[in-house]
Amino acid sequence: MEEYVVRPIGVVRSALKDPADAPKQGALTGQEAEIVVDPAYLPALEGLDPAKGKIIVMCWMHRADRDRRKVHPRGQEDRPERGVFSTRSPHRPNPVSLHTVTLLSIEGNVLRVRGMDSVDGTPVVDIKSHSPELDG
Amino acid sequence: MEEYVVRPIGVVRSALKDPADAPKQGALTGQEAEIVVDPAYLPALEGLDPAKGKIIVMCWMHRADRDRRKVHPRGQEDRPERGVFSTRSPHRPNPVSLHTVTLLSIEGNVLRVRGMDSVDGTPVVDIKSHSPELDG
Repeated sequence: MEEYVVRPIGVVRSALKDPADAPKQGALTGQEAEIVVDPAYLPALEGLDPAKGKIIVMCWMHRADRDRRKVHPRGQEDRPERGVFSTRSPHRPNPVSLHTVTLLSIEGNVLRVRGMDSVDGTPVVDIKSHSPELDG
Repeated sequence: MEEYVVRPIGVVRSALKDPADAPKQGALTGQEAEIVVDPAYLPALEGLDPAKGKIIVMCWMHRADRDRRKVHPRGQEDRPERGVFSTRSPHRPNPVSLHTVTLLSIEGNVLRVRGMDSVDGTPVVDIKSHSPELDG
């Protein structure tokens, strides 16, 4: 099948520096982070509004192992391995992460969000509006 | 920033042949489709179970216009243009789509799902478990 090229549109800035420090699911922790968007994409941010509720952020988990087919869920080695497509493990053939986060503020090309477990320096692939009806 | 390569792990098979026929949001229509996974990834499917609720499917919208920064929401030209990152438009710099769908059945490498608005032939990038707590 044809391949496609992901060109990051921004980067995560976070106090989380090491994957080992990251909570298994940031949405449950309230971790805050910044999404610094490449200024070339400023027009694409128009319409994002903290008053409109949650947003979806997709990242490229650049430290993931793309060759893993099975993992212990949540890294707990006492649990039997499962196929990566039945988990939220970062290790998967195309390591695109999915974060439903609260948009706290926007200043220029910097979005401040809550509920983001990505480590500092993670490339950002996409931002979308969240819909409880579609995504819940 | 560094670029990354997406290698599709499967393809959508659907009665929807043309983007013009696709509903604006398939999750609201109950459209059924098949996800045909490359047999090389069969081990990664283990643990997926129709009894466990919804799953997330990500696709690469290969017909999208990656250079668009603003769109009319839902293609309605009477509505003012907005930045693509505040919408669910397929037109975006990295056209990764997000589908929260009901897993109806699995037979070998073929997943039958409900709530999928992608057209026939759309490359599939990833499959994840859905979590109402994380994603709702």
